[in-house]
Amino acid sequence: MTAPETAEGWYVLHDIRRVDQGRWSALNPDRRQEIAEATAAWLARVAQPGAGAGSSAAYRMLGHKGDLLFLHLRRTLDELQTLEAGFDATPLAAYCDRPTSFVSVVELSLYGASEDVRRNPMSQPWLVRRLYPPVPDRRYVCFYPVNRRRAGEENWYALPFQTRRELLEAHGQTGRRYADRVTQMITGAIGLDDWEWGVTLWADDPLAFKKLVYEMRFDEISAKYAEFGPFYVGIRLAPPELARRLR
Amino acid sequence: MTAPETAEGWYVLHDIRRVDQGRWSALNPDRRQEIAEATAAWLARVAQPGAGAGSSAAYRMLGHKGDLLFLHLRRTLDELQTLEAGFDATPLAAYCDRPTSFVSVVELSLYGASEDVRRNPMSQPWLVRRLYPPVPDRRYVCFYPVNRRRAGEENWYALPFQTRRELLEAHGQTGRRYADRVTQMITGAIGLDDWEWGVTLWADDPLAFKKLVYEMRFDEISAKYAEFGPFYVGIRLAPPELARRLR
Amino acid sequence: MTAPETAEGWYVLHDIRRVDQGRWSALNPDRRQEIAEATAAWLARVAQPGAGAGSSAAYRMLGHKGDLLFLHLRRTLDELQTLEAGFDATPLAAYCDRPTSFVSVVELSLYGASEDVRRNPMSQPWLVRRLYPPVPDRRYVCFYPVNRRRAGEENWYALPFQTRRELLEAHGQTGRRYADRVTQMITGAIGLDDWEWGVTLWADDPLAFKKLVYEMRFDEISAKYAEFGPFYVGIRLAPPELARRLR
Amino acid sequence: MTAPETAEGWYVLHDIRRVDQGRWSALNPDRRQEIAEATAAWLARVAQPGAGAGSSAAYRMLGHKGDLLFLHLRRTLDELQTLEAGFDATPLAAYCDRPTSFVSVVELSLYGASEDVRRNPMSQPWLVRRLYPPVPDRRYVCFYPVNRRRAGEENWYALPFQTRRELLEAHGQTGRRYADRVTQMITGAIGLDDWEWGVTLWADDPLAFKKLVYEMRFDEISAKYAEFGPFYVGIRLAPPELARRLR
Amino acid sequence: MTAPETAEGWYVLHDIRRVDQGRWSALNPDRRQEIAEATAAWLARVAQPGAGAGSSAAYRMLGHKGDLLFLHLRRTLDELQTLEAGFDATPLAAYCDRPTSFVSVVELSLYGASEDVRRNPMSQPWLVRRLYPPVPDRRYVCFYPVNRRRAGEENWYALPFQTRRELLEAHGQTGRRYADRVTQMITGAIGLDDWEWGVTLWADDPLAFKKLVYEMRFDEISAKYAEFGPFYVGIRLAPPELARRLR
Repeated sequence: MTAPETAEGWYVLHDIRRVDQGRWSALNPDRRQEIAEATAAWLARVAQPGAGAGSSAAYRMLGHKGDLLFLHLRRTLDELQTLEAGFDATPLAAYCDRPTSFVSVVELSLYGASEDVRRNPMSQPWLVRRLYPPVPDRRYVCFYPVNRRRAGEENWYALPFQTRRELLEAHGQTGRRYADRVTQMITGAIGLDDWEWGVTLWADDPLAFKKLVYEMRFDEISAKYAEFGPFYVGIRLAPPELARRLR
Repeated sequence: MTAPETAEGWYVLHDIRRVDQGRWSALNPDRRQEIAEATAAWLARVAQPGAGAGSSAAYRMLGHKGDLLFLHLRRTLDELQTLEAGFDATPLAAYCDRPTSFVSVVELSLYGASEDVRRNPMSQPWLVRRLYPPVPDRRYVCFYPVNRRRAGEENWYALPFQTRRELLEAHGQTGRRYADRVTQMITGAIGLDDWEWGVTLWADDPLAFKKLVYEMRFDEISAKYAEFGPFYVGIRLAPPELARRLR
Repeated sequence: MTAPETAEGWYVLHDIRRVDQGRWSALNPDRRQEIAEATAAWLARVAQPGAGAGSSAAYRMLGHKGDLLFLHLRRTLDELQTLEAGFDATPLAAYCDRPTSFVSVVELSLYGASEDVRRNPMSQPWLVRRLYPPVPDRRYVCFYPVNRRRAGEENWYALPFQTRRELLEAHGQTGRRYADRVTQMITGAIGLDDWEWGVTLWADDPLAFKKLVYEMRFDEISAKYAEFGPFYVGIRLAPPELARRLR
Repeated sequence: MTAPETAEGWYVLHDIRRVDQGRWSALNPDRRQEIAEATAAWLARVAQPGAGAGSSAAYRMLGHKGDLLFLHLRRTLDELQTLEAGFDATPLAAYCDRPTSFVSVVELSLYGASEDVRRNPMSQPWLVRRLYPPVPDRRYVCFYPVNRRRAGEENWYALPFQTRRELLEAHGQTGRRYADRVTQMITGAIGLDDWEWGVTLWADDPLAFKKLVYEMRFDEISAKYAEFGPFYVGIRLAPPELARRLR
Repeated sequence: MTAPETAEGWYVLHDIRRVDQGRWSALNPDRRQEIAEATAAWLARVAQPGAGAGSSAAYRMLGHKGDLLFLHLRRTLDELQTLEAGFDATPLAAYCDRPTSFVSVVELSLYGASEDVRRNPMSQPWLVRRLYPPVPDRRYVCFYPVNRRRAGEENWYALPFQTRRELLEAHGQTGRRYADRVTQMITGAIGLDDWEWGVTLWADDPLAFKKLVYEMRFDEISAKYAEFGPFYVGIRLAPPELARRLR
């Protein structure tokens, strides 16, 4: 079967850290304050590295799967590596472990694209905007990885090109009905991380995550061909809030 | 296939903590007493935050999967986040790890509901009562997450709307036969946590959990379409009992 | 499909603990001796709580899955909870972690029982004896949890009542051929723990475990409908042996 | 279906330990030397416990799955238990954790055996030699556990006796072609540990492991009915080498 | 079914280490500098052990799965063992754990080879070059393990020799289209480690990993017969960069 052509944009790192409460709360409040401010200063430094250079954001997570999610969008894998090393160099890192992470790159499948677009995707301003998005200004984030199933009759990679194109288009229509409520970023991780794709959603009302993902699960592409990984949900932290939250 | 409409109520956090016996028992008894009382005071503060604001409860768990289960029902995800941070700020948190948690929201499926109800669920007092329940005054709690199966012939999300409605109704009848012995709360976690739903049961006799769940397993909806996660069982702890149990 | 009626007896806790060799062997021999004796004294206290109140036993386990298995049979879930808290209060607990546990209740399925028995199981002395057994006086124990399969054609919960009854009876016959060599206790954990049943076997020759479980695996009920969890094997420790083993 | 008769020999413990480099290298060299020599002395003591009593051997492992594999062959489960406790009593144990282990017993299936052999296997000297082998004098060891599959059409335990016998015989022929290069020991773990069998191979050239296991994977019995666990590979350590390797 | 003949070259160790930030950053900068330089000196020593003796390289990894990947190609398994012990003897090892590793040997399947080649593979210079490759001078590395599926209709080991040969040839053609952008090394791990093969890719643009692996996933051999393990991605570190990165 034929692979679709794809266009790629930002490299993306979802970097999740968990604070060791035992060692953290053993620090005296002044030291905690100092570390909280240093971490916030680091976040402020990396959040807006300049025009065309990407952006970073922090979220406080719900549940036991982690405390902080740092989301980095950059031009190169090397910059992502520098950013994770940068966090490791903050004094907070010594009180954190790192339960998970996800390395991927913004991806658009060109299943239905015209020959013009497929030849030179970067000549299309609308496409470039989708490949190099900013972190949107929305309060809640939801992230989960997905695979396409390869099992007996339900094998995405054995479907004809045209069938895959139609299933994706129908799926896209469900997504578009939520366009005003949910901002969506699809990243590809084949050859980079353990799952094939990552889905990052942003909304101002977290119920929109549930409504959208539930409705999509009835799309044939999800019902028959999707394998879902863990779901991570967080609330945006501007640098001063990060400092407040930590100390 | 068509997704059902749903109505949502409280956001719910099942927050499980495990005490590190090695470090805890190394404390002197006075310090343990002090911490136990501070934790009980925190629980007393959050248990009844006021009319219409939700409620919280604590349970001591059986087995190795955790020591304490804190159950929080609130209006918003942000309040749940504040509550988990609130526990982290108690002195007990420094002696605990957090083996698991579950983030979800009370959900009612409107498969069989009239158009009136579907249009404005909040106009129905009986529905509002089920979406915003109190933590019932029963001694034992049982919690487990579930998925609906998507595998070959056994694919819930590929069933017709009407079939799903009928399977759910038959399932509901099994539950209703236990209504006097078991209080039940269904929460949706699609887009919020790793499993699709959470089932929280309360009873005054823990044998009722076994009888109900066993009987339900023979319902077609469970036999063919359910995937079960781990089961957690606990015994209610009012704040003074929490203090006694800890020290 | 119809669920069978069941009768229940003792609540049972399989409580597995593992000693941290690094911290344990750093203690001086006198302190180890002191702790070993305190633990043995605790075991002696809980082993025979009185007529009709249940019993407890300890086993030293083989392999890396744990060091000590405490087996508690009691009237209520609350007593089991008190027993695990009781071990946590011994000085040994501070040197242990707890890799696993199993919470269940002795169960007899009444598939083939007469109406008389089903109506009032507790009127049958033979049934009461099987629901409230003592820990038998045999040197070796074997414990493993099992599920009944629910997958495509191999779905226990979709079989007719009569078929399930016949498969169980054939299985019981295999067990009865080993009755003199192996004592068997079936406990139900649906609604209480992650697996549906627990099987606890006792023998004076551990080869009998292998012979029995191997032969049973060819029974249709196991070959087609059983999912097996981990297997735990141990050697009985009376309190003085527990003290000797630890120090 | 009928279970085959089996004959059993040595009880076998594969005991894997991993050294905590952080704590180990913090010791001063004299203390490391002292511990290394004590461990080597312990190994020398248990390696050859006397005629007919079994044997023990140590291997340094490759990769992250462990550092040392101790292999013990003895008459009883109790002796294995004493040996693992014996290692725990060496000063090295305080610097080790124990990532895995395997408890099993040397097993021969008597599928094709004559009635004479089945009635009294121990009257056959060739059989006794295979049930009570020494640890062979070969440099490399390979260990892996296996299950026979029970899934839909591919259910070993639902095959006729005669089919199982033929599949095993064909498999044995592949093994015999490697007889001069690879020594093989099959141990049964049903009722004793999490996998059904263990395969222990010894060779003077580790490439023989790869060649043999690869070729066998195309045997119908492996292709259709085998589930493989993790593979462990090690290099023999006589006591003086163990001391050298550790310090 | 018939196993293909294979030719083997270097033994290969993928050795992944993770630095404990808490303990590492508690060191004073001078001590960190000293350790960083000692580790770089060790890497410089082992990187080029001499003509025909193999080579070693280090990579800094992306994400939480590890910090450093050491890749060692050597003549024997014993040399790999000496190399992992060599790292354990550096002062850095005391601050690292070891989340994973992979033990394998460069392998070429001789499915389509002439009788001449199969009889004496080492007489073919082109084959010897592929069995004993150097670590290529490319900036990015990608490593992942794979199995061939054995499940119902999708059973690689039950396919005819000729079908396997054709599927592999088609797969090889996809790979060859990327030959200028991606250097590829296939290693066999059957009988040596938990997965059957390892794939190591090198490129100067990490997007080439994604493009190649994605395209290959639509090859019938991957779509139907491949099971993929985790993916690891890293950036090359010459010894001076390793020192810089660590301190």
